[in-house]
Amino acid sequence: PHVPYTPTRYQPEEMLERSKQFYSLLNQRRSVRFISPEPVPRSVIDNVILAAGTAPSGAHTEPWTFVVVSEPETKHKIRLIVEEEEEINYKQRMGNKWVKDLERLRTNWVKEYLDVAPYLILIFKQAYGILPNGKKKTHYYNEISVSISCGLLLAALHNVGLVTVTTTPLNCGPQLRALLRRPANEKLLMLLPVGYAAADATVPDLKRKPLDDVMVYI
Amino acid sequence: PHVPYTPTRYQPEEMLERSKQFYSLLNQRRSVRFISPEPVPRSVIDNVILAAGTAPSGAHTEPWTFVVVSEPETKHKIRLIVEEEEEINYKQRMGNKWVKDLERLRTNWVKEYLDVAPYLILIFKQAYGILPNGKKKTHYYNEISVSISCGLLLAALHNVGLVTVTTTPLNCGPQLRALLRRPANEKLLMLLPVGYAAADATVPDLKRKPLDDVMVYI
Ligand SMILES: Cc1cc2nc3c(=O)[nH]c(=O)nc-3n(C[C@H](O)[C@H](O)[C@H](O)COP(=O)(O)O)c2cc1C
Ligand SMILES: Cc1cc2nc3c(=O)[nH]c(=O)nc-3n(C[C@H](O)[C@H](O)[C@H](O)COP(=O)(O)O)c2cc1C
Repeated sequence: PHVPYTPTRYQPEEMLERSKQFYSLLNQRRSVRFISPEPVPRSVIDNVILAAGTAPSGAHTEPWTFVVVSEPETKHKIRLIVEEEEEINYKQRMGNKWVKDLERLRTNWVKEYLDVAPYLILIFKQAYGILPNGKKKTHYYNEISVSISCGLLLAALHNVGLVTVTTTPLNCGPQLRALLRRPANEKLLMLLPVGYAAADATVPDLKRKPLDDVMVYI
Repeated sequence: PHVPYTPTRYQPEEMLERSKQFYSLLNQRRSVRFISPEPVPRSVIDNVILAAGTAPSGAHTEPWTFVVVSEPETKHKIRLIVEEEEEINYKQRMGNKWVKDLERLRTNWVKEYLDVAPYLILIFKQAYGILPNGKKKTHYYNEISVSISCGLLLAALHNVGLVTVTTTPLNCGPQLRALLRRPANEKLLMLLPVGYAAADATVPDLKRKPLDDVMVYI
């Protein structure tokens, strides 16, 4: 059944003001690779994940699983898996060009934040679902849907003053899936270390493209 | 060069309050297929696209182009292309199962909103970039990056009281790319009709999964 839907409406001046505020908020977000070990309230994490779960998804399949890791030993095991694979990625798999493209970000395979951050959020996409009768349920556009949901998660984290860095650890999916005992239909999409920024955190001095470079108006 | 980064910090109670507010805001978002023809200020559209452009992207490639169409003739041409392909999708390409999965959403191939909505935003992913020397520039994880950016766009639209429905028009990409004169490195990822909700808008009576179904805590 369908039900009426009447979202909040704002006057034009208020819309404009809200659109500026929201842009200004999001424009202050940066990917941070230096995270403080200070604890973060668990209820805040629950709420940012609830926010991520409001994302649209193809045919309303909600094909996401958010694994939140705070347990130090598990975080350390994740670090060992990621660093081992990332060292091979940087030295062999990625090729000179990719490594060069990353130079200005000063990233490498040592990921201290995987031990230090109070939470690691590992986001799995459910490539398909399982119906009550055991058959596979198609998850249309699952990667796009889960990525949209991660966009909401990043906004929600930034909105409460937490930082993260979006990472897609190449070739670590199967080992991390096994470590976290996720079922075969789930594939690792992203890994986000989450916490407050370290007091001395720095970020690459990047600029964002101006509006004219990203928007075409017809 | 790297520069210091000190994001805003909030006290625990304020973080919790902000996290609740943001979840409550996003939880009111729904995909709306009945859009009002009322005009929407252009500057609001500029700001929501600026917000989308703050998304992270693999190696900071910013691989997105947002084509905003307000011109009625172009909107109508888009409608003709989409409806023609969608009729074939529903009748032949999607198969009985997919069509059945969509039944409760009551969607079909007639898309009046493509004429009616004051804006259509077509989001293209740049599958690769072009360097000044004419060579191809790799865009790592471009689809994931652009989808994250769409997540921010959806949040920004909802935050100003506008509605949309996320659509991925199957098989329409090449024709829409040609109509909008986008270069060969750009592929259509999503099409969002944008405006106020129609006064009598309805939505399918869907529920979202509870936290325990989407989050695992370790
Ligand atoms: C990647 C993606 C593709 C979608 N494609 C369509 C579409 O082609 N047509 C449509 O009417 N809705 C489409 N939707 C919207 C979903 O049906 C909708 O998000 C879902 O039913 C949940 O409803 P909600 O967005 O109101 O929470 C799509 C959503 C996503 C994320
Ligand atoms: C899909 C995706 C994958 C990324 N992978 C990594 C990664 O593996 N390691 C890393 O340090 N940063 C990674 N990043 C972060 C980008 O380098 C960063 O978003 C970009 O440099 C822009 O900086 P900003 O997020 O501060 O605006 C990734 C970002 C995206 C969207």
